[in-house]
Amino acid sequence: MRIARKVRKLAPYIHGEQPRGRDVIKLNTNEAAYLPSAKAMAVLKKFNPENLRRYPSAECVDLCAALAKLHRTTPDRVFVGNGSDEILSLMTDAYVEDDEAIVTLDPSYSLYRTLADIRGVKWLGFSWGGLRRKTGGKAALALITSPNNPTGVQIPPKEIAAFAKRFPGVVVVDEAYVDYADVDCMALATAKANRNIIVMRTFSKAYALAGLRVGYCVGPKDLVEALYKIKDSYNVDAIAQAVALAAIKDQKHLKGLVAKVLKTRTWFVAELEKRGWDVMPTQANFVFARPPCAKTAKADAKRVFEGLRERKIFVRYFSGPKTCDRVRFSIGTDAQMRRVLKEVDAILG
Amino acid sequence: MRIARKVRKLAPYIHGEQPRGRDVIKLNTNEAAYLPSAKAMAVLKKFNPENLRRYPSAECVDLCAALAKLHRTTPDRVFVGNGSDEILSLMTDAYVEDDEAIVTLDPSYSLYRTLADIRGVKWLGFSWGGLRRKTGGKAALALITSPNNPTGVQIPPKEIAAFAKRFPGVVVVDEAYVDYADVDCMALATAKANRNIIVMRTFSKAYALAGLRVGYCVGPKDLVEALYKIKDSYNVDAIAQAVALAAIKDQKHLKGLVAKVLKTRTWFVAELEKRGWDVMPTQANFVFARPPCAKTAKADAKRVFEGLRERKIFVRYFSGPKTCDRVRFSIGTDAQMRRVLKEVDAILG
Repeated sequence: MRIARKVRKLAPYIHGEQPRGRDVIKLNTNEAAYLPSAKAMAVLKKFNPENLRRYPSAECVDLCAALAKLHRTTPDRVFVGNGSDEILSLMTDAYVEDDEAIVTLDPSYSLYRTLADIRGVKWLGFSWGGLRRKTGGKAALALITSPNNPTGVQIPPKEIAAFAKRFPGVVVVDEAYVDYADVDCMALATAKANRNIIVMRTFSKAYALAGLRVGYCVGPKDLVEALYKIKDSYNVDAIAQAVALAAIKDQKHLKGLVAKVLKTRTWFVAELEKRGWDVMPTQANFVFARPPCAKTAKADAKRVFEGLRERKIFVRYFSGPKTCDRVRFSIGTDAQMRRVLKEVDAILG
Repeated sequence: MRIARKVRKLAPYIHGEQPRGRDVIKLNTNEAAYLPSAKAMAVLKKFNPENLRRYPSAECVDLCAALAKLHRTTPDRVFVGNGSDEILSLMTDAYVEDDEAIVTLDPSYSLYRTLADIRGVKWLGFSWGGLRRKTGGKAALALITSPNNPTGVQIPPKEIAAFAKRFPGVVVVDEAYVDYADVDCMALATAKANRNIIVMRTFSKAYALAGLRVGYCVGPKDLVEALYKIKDSYNVDAIAQAVALAAIKDQKHLKGLVAKVLKTRTWFVAELEKRGWDVMPTQANFVFARPPCAKTAKADAKRVFEGLRERKIFVRYFSGPKTCDRVRFSIGTDAQMRRVLKEVDAILG
């Protein structure tokens, strides 16, 4: 047969809709509410064509050095990928044997399960309480999004550290949204005594560079080295390396963007709660919220999602049993969130 | 164990050196001798930051449409990747079962063997004569570079078509260098009757965009669809999509660049032959050549490689038994190749 069995069986991963057009309000894939750093954009204007003619740095040398400095660690503990997605995909090859399993929170980033299917290994999803007890058996890789998606809830770093001590495999803390949170796990990843914790970050969220495709992770040298062994030779293009480098040097822009989003988040959560919605305690740039009436929450959540969609406002709805009574709203600008509230009021009457 | 067995055993792929600095002559990784299209570079100057804030097109919609038009086929037969390397890596997952094998020419692009190791399947290398007889057994994927690397020799499309008819698996013709050749296999890939031929192209060579990381392939719908199923959600960044799109619209620049390189190639081959070198009949932007004295060719080839390196001229030397008596020179500008000849004369005395 020409197509491998496991691939024939696969259903493709469904990513959030990427509607085109200027008149849509797009609050469905947790992009930043504001534009990226002007200093990062300036890199494009003066980009040397000679650096496109040649292959890029295979090991993202300058970018790794800057990230190491930012996180007070050494470059040999840093790996940069074509988005965090590439890193996750490499991890399923690097850290998991054919007969082992990948464990994650459930609900969480739905790509994890797809990656296990592509790799052809078992996937098991748990609540945090359940996952913490899952420290034996064939679990080789724990992918923990914190703050979690779609809930927004963050797991305290101390609990992650305690879990990693007992877990036999590699513990990856996917901190895609951590710039919007009060605490983070980076100190666990850079600690000398760390044997099995990797922290993953991205430029797609608070750096406002989802279109650039740059993610990175920090962890023990041997685990990082395993990723280098199996990555594509030149996995991050020259422009992406240069723009990301400029972006991390502009921490002022990052902090300003985060401050604005948090202000809007606080106000938006209060507005939803005023209307009787149940909002999970979020540490991310989105809220996962249940409509007021407990009995009709499921139908109402779907109605809000669909009603907003008709009005060209895109939010996210997950139809699974643990998520179907809630709507996930990415935090946009104040004006966008005011519009959302107005339309939600109209939809629920 | 935390690192998978097959990864622990791996030696990392050794790519061509990417020396930095302005005073080097870099003829070791077959980049184009001239800069990319000014029209493609202009895209960077006016790039809308909004398109970096958002995720890129997951399916490279505009780029696939333009490539389909260029090759007179439909977009659902086109797949774009983060360099051809990503596509090759996906192919080892999509088309090969765990107990099957990948077959290639030998010598050829050394990454193929590394990819088989990463995938954990058997690799078998043959001469073209040997590969043509290899149409039974467990061979599921044939990766054929044509024009081949490092030899520069192209396999006639008719022979590829005949081979594909008998081969039980997928036949990939990696045409990275085909813009420098007289003929190509694209008509085989776009033919309606085609069941198992995929042609792969790249922007890294004659488009002079190695730093951009964009490759693509064209083939039967079902084989292309299998790649979409297992790729990362957003595998090609927004800037790369836009720049590549502008580059394919500037075919005049491509043709001009190729014409200049071919002129230099003809002249350089004649100069080497004048000096008694044996040059393989190349259809690419490099030549694979054996120093004049048959008895000392192996030592001389290494001496030329090392001597040029001392003079900051980087060419490629492959120490394997089938390649160790030759040097691969990428074709640079006339001035660069004149300098190469001068230094080669000095080294061999």
